[in-house]
Amino acid sequence: MVGEAVVEESSVRETYIHPVHLRWSDEDRNGHVNNSKFMTYTEDARIAWLGVMRAQTGAGPGSEGVILASLHCEYKAQVHFAHTKELEVLNTVRRIGSSSVELHQTVQVPGAEVVADLITVLVSFDYDAGRAAPWGDEQRAWLGKYVEGVGDAAAV
Amino acid sequence: MVGEAVVEESSVRETYIHPVHLRWSDEDRNGHVNNSKFMTYTEDARIAWLGVMRAQTGAGPGSEGVILASLHCEYKAQVHFAHTKELEVLNTVRRIGSSSVELHQTVQVPGAEVVADLITVLVSFDYDAGRAAPWGDEQRAWLGKYVEGVGDAAAV
Amino acid sequence: MVGEAVVEESSVRETYIHPVHLRWSDEDRNGHVNNSKFMTYTEDARIAWLGVMRAQTGAGPGSEGVILASLHCEYKAQVHFAHTKELEVLNTVRRIGSSSVELHQTVQVPGAEVVADLITVLVSFDYDAGRAAPWGDEQRAWLGKYVEGVGDAAAV
Amino acid sequence: MVGEAVVEESSVRETYIHPVHLRWSDEDRNGHVNNSKFMTYTEDARIAWLGVMRAQTGAGPGSEGVILASLHCEYKAQVHFAHTKELEVLNTVRRIGSSSVELHQTVQVPGAEVVADLITVLVSFDYDAGRAAPWGDEQRAWLGKYVEGVGDAAAV
Repeated sequence: MVGEAVVEESSVRETYIHPVHLRWSDEDRNGHVNNSKFMTYTEDARIAWLGVMRAQTGAGPGSEGVILASLHCEYKAQVHFAHTKELEVLNTVRRIGSSSVELHQTVQVPGAEVVADLITVLVSFDYDAGRAAPWGDEQRAWLGKYVEGVGDAAAV
Repeated sequence: MVGEAVVEESSVRETYIHPVHLRWSDEDRNGHVNNSKFMTYTEDARIAWLGVMRAQTGAGPGSEGVILASLHCEYKAQVHFAHTKELEVLNTVRRIGSSSVELHQTVQVPGAEVVADLITVLVSFDYDAGRAAPWGDEQRAWLGKYVEGVGDAAAV
Repeated sequence: MVGEAVVEESSVRETYIHPVHLRWSDEDRNGHVNNSKFMTYTEDARIAWLGVMRAQTGAGPGSEGVILASLHCEYKAQVHFAHTKELEVLNTVRRIGSSSVELHQTVQVPGAEVVADLITVLVSFDYDAGRAAPWGDEQRAWLGKYVEGVGDAAAV
Repeated sequence: MVGEAVVEESSVRETYIHPVHLRWSDEDRNGHVNNSKFMTYTEDARIAWLGVMRAQTGAGPGSEGVILASLHCEYKAQVHFAHTKELEVLNTVRRIGSSSVELHQTVQVPGAEVVADLITVLVSFDYDAGRAAPWGDEQRAWLGKYVEGVGDAAAV
């Protein structure tokens, strides 16, 4: 059972941390990083994280095997290129579906302020067939390592 | 009372429609419009709509007087530049706060399929003072014209 | 002979005009359209123009069949979203090579000021084979209609 | 004399190297980094380099004090995110004008292949006054350290 496995591994829950290097043009004319850039930062984090899945489980999806189903972003603080050249995205799993995964992606100044808090839902997608592709057992187990807390894991 | 005004005007509820012209580079290497571009499309719609507010009420915020507080996006269908060169964003109001407004922004192929459905929360923001700026009466009345349905209006 | 054809058609030299719809986020924090956006505007113009080639000659390249070899851009004037919502790109041909074409792409406020002046060199490219693909006779004739002036045509 | 200073320092000519961190969405649907991204990479390099000028000479321009007058780019090789996550921009000076500077900016895979070769002309610009702002002596001397070769220096 995936749920049991997650519970057992809850003491070793992992957070995937992805570094973000700002670009000057990430800012818009209001003098702060544009709202759409947080989607790019978290996209890069997901792609890198899924690359680890592929490397560790021998199976995709890689960058071309998922589709973004939904996204919720709370903007917490303005980011200014003059003050911050790097951010980091902290990634954990909130829920694992048959072919989907709900991620919690927190964007923060390294070791400091959270600037954006996102929930993103990915669907493992077979682009050739044009439909969702269920996770394999190994992928589910891998995703389980990133599930947030024991309570959430029980709901998986 | 703002609520009353909205109820009276509910029969003439307005939707602000903003055209979007796709660019080839809006697509990513997966061959569809990248998820972050819907933020740009709806940003442009908000800015144009707030420009109408300014023109009709004589008061801001304009493009530089709001800040995006949160955003929720449901991706409904892939968009391909080869098939679609134009989209449109339909904008209505879900809730008016003291200095905020919750928008419903639907992105669709003109007269056809909805491709993305967004809820965005804007805060009227005084960038110089660095804090929220309450709506004036005239702005609230103007926003009220776009409120979705009578039931929602009562909750304003 | 391509050169002769061009000379004969010089009285009907064509300019391909492509409209550009600005986006608010095309501006950077300096409050004018960012330098890199002119590459996007002219890319879209090239793709639309090559789409006409495909439609009229029955052969590519289309958007996926060319590669940009070089680009020269003279920035002539700042563009401000607050003043200008549309630009247009005027496209003519300066030189036709065996598998390349040198374009003159002028970006202007419609019917008014030139804001950027570009020379771009495209190579018809077979992405599968990874090498340049010579123009066919029909494509060369089609390109010839856009050649600038009689003198330039003689040098083709 | 700036020229003499440059000649004397020619044996210690400096190259400013700026790292570039690719993003997945830098690629376009042709599966390689889009042509416009090289403008963003080199823009970031110029801004970082001018930040060093400001730090070392006590005077601007900083990121907001220059304007790009022209740009020439030779695309040398395709860049694929799957193969390369980092690039670097090597920056030297070709010519120093009264209020301008011509830069040579080479984009390469670190320690390996050159992927793009750019010449960019910057003008020190007073945005408030709307006109070019001549370099001060200290800034000219600082720029001189990056001049390419002795022959070029004589032409400064």
